[in-house]
Amino acid sequence: MSSRETVDFIYEAHERIKPFVHKTPVYTNTTFNNLIGKEAFFKCENLQKTGSFKARGALNTILKLKKSNPNLKGVVAYSSGNHGLATAWASHLAGVKCSVVVPKTTSEFKVTAVQGYGAKVVKCEYDPISRLEACETIATKEGYEIIHTSDHDDVIHGQGTIALEFLQEVPDLDAILVSASGGGMISVFMVEPKGKMAEESLRSGKRLWPNPPQFIDTIAEGLMSQQLGNLTFPIICRLVEKEVFTVGNEDIINGMVFSFRYLKMVIEAAAGATVAAAMSEKLKQMDPGIKKIGVILCGGNIDILKLPWYSSTYQNGPKRFKLF
Amino acid sequence: MSSRETVDFIYEAHERIKPFVHKTPVYTNTTFNNLIGKEAFFKCENLQKTGSFKARGALNTILKLKKSNPNLKGVVAYSSGNHGLATAWASHLAGVKCSVVVPKTTSEFKVTAVQGYGAKVVKCEYDPISRLEACETIATKEGYEIIHTSDHDDVIHGQGTIALEFLQEVPDLDAILVSASGGGMISVFMVEPKGKMAEESLRSGKRLWPNPPQFIDTIAEGLMSQQLGNLTFPIICRLVEKEVFTVGNEDIINGMVFSFRYLKMVIEAAAGATVAAAMSEKLKQMDPGIKKIGVILCGGNIDILKLPWYSSTYQNGPKRFKLF
Repeated sequence: MSSRETVDFIYEAHERIKPFVHKTPVYTNTTFNNLIGKEAFFKCENLQKTGSFKARGALNTILKLKKSNPNLKGVVAYSSGNHGLATAWASHLAGVKCSVVVPKTTSEFKVTAVQGYGAKVVKCEYDPISRLEACETIATKEGYEIIHTSDHDDVIHGQGTIALEFLQEVPDLDAILVSASGGGMISVFMVEPKGKMAEESLRSGKRLWPNPPQFIDTIAEGLMSQQLGNLTFPIICRLVEKEVFTVGNEDIINGMVFSFRYLKMVIEAAAGATVAAAMSEKLKQMDPGIKKIGVILCGGNIDILKLPWYSSTYQNGPKRFKLF
Repeated sequence: MSSRETVDFIYEAHERIKPFVHKTPVYTNTTFNNLIGKEAFFKCENLQKTGSFKARGALNTILKLKKSNPNLKGVVAYSSGNHGLATAWASHLAGVKCSVVVPKTTSEFKVTAVQGYGAKVVKCEYDPISRLEACETIATKEGYEIIHTSDHDDVIHGQGTIALEFLQEVPDLDAILVSASGGGMISVFMVEPKGKMAEESLRSGKRLWPNPPQFIDTIAEGLMSQQLGNLTFPIICRLVEKEVFTVGNEDIINGMVFSFRYLKMVIEAAAGATVAAAMSEKLKQMDPGIKKIGVILCGGNIDILKLPWYSSTYQNGPKRFKLF
């Protein structure tokens, strides 16, 4: 698919989903701008339906599916969090049956939220292979369609509507920081947790990750898959800058604490990663022409009874915040 | 001052401050509406400049002062939090010198924030008398004007602009819940922490609080003064319903947790109090004609490294949230 076609599909997706999703606000913060010496714009997908941008892709996919197949029996998704919740919500809205496969370690809070939209929750082992197998078993047995987390054109086009809205609101952004796959007409930089090792693959254009696919050790649950998708990888190679922002858990916590304190926004670790990237030395050192930075706060689904800066592992981390 | 005059002054205040303050967004939440069986509208003053609605009153007062007295030497405010920060911010904006008197127990984080706007911080003992005395000493010595936290017409009119904006956005609200003084054309209900004992005074129209003025024991720092102001009390008696919503610390935490989890909004305890009132049995039992509820999230300035549900005192409190 060419870039031009991709953009057309994103516009179509936007028309399809916009009556049902929020046009999320874009906020700025003087303290943050002073801190980074640039102008930052925060796109608040934490305020999106179901608390994350995933509502966009899931809804686009399910609405298209239902239109092309009015006898659709149901859908099934695998996800430890946002994509599962988004698929449950979108199915409920579209009047479609839904099952969500989650690792058995998933918190009761998330399970209850998914069930709250009438979806069935199926538990599996905590690894990428098990969840895919469980999903395929249900799809075969029930005749359900699988809604992939990212490796599906309709999901990708749905998520792409964030960039569309963002650029409609702030047309002259010089760069966008995203902690997930994305695209647009400007410089898009990927933000990854330590261990994802995306830069090497991006630079070579080859999938250099070890197999079988594994989860990496990060507090950002939304970013724990090491490998980029088979469909998203070539798009990212084409549209996204080769330089990747790699952030550790302490950086992520720094970003989250800033957001809670100054933006008054509850964000999850995956969003904290983009704030951390915007605050990084690496960004400061880049081309001074990069002045207006778009930061996508991808979601706000975090267990607020277990915020990472209260964990014994990171209790000394927040000392760094005295400077702000 | 008649109600008509008050409204005129609020319109004037709005014209004066609106180039500098945010028109804060109003959000709704399906989960919350389902929970309370009414339609709730959250006015997000936690996203206001300086993180609370106090920016409105402080700025209105200082801009008026400066216009009437171009040789204004400076201003001084006493506050343990939001009003101090707001006064520091407004003074900086107006190019006016500023001192803020804070109890010596105030966290370093707040002190740093006030100093960040170029204001001088003066510490005093933790009681209502000491802070007033310290403030008056500075006013006399430096020739500064005192910016009262609420007992000042210009401050009151500034804060009143919240209701103006709120009703412009949602004209058919049936009730507004506020945890501070306020006014409007609809039913306004006051929300108070346990120990404030406002209802008795409101019903009798007399100041029945014990003297000297004292602070009450509540996690809502913004609501710790037991007595209403000398200027605000008659306005509240005239405009606010006699029924008061009294909320305990556990209720306040419930309200905060709901906001963090579902609205993705960081709010302080005083704002959690209004969410708790909206979730209360008392509201459910009221006139069924009250359907659309305005909830003012007055501020978001809370030490996120010391959230109350992580304190050993309340560690069992959040168990109640499994139901949502």
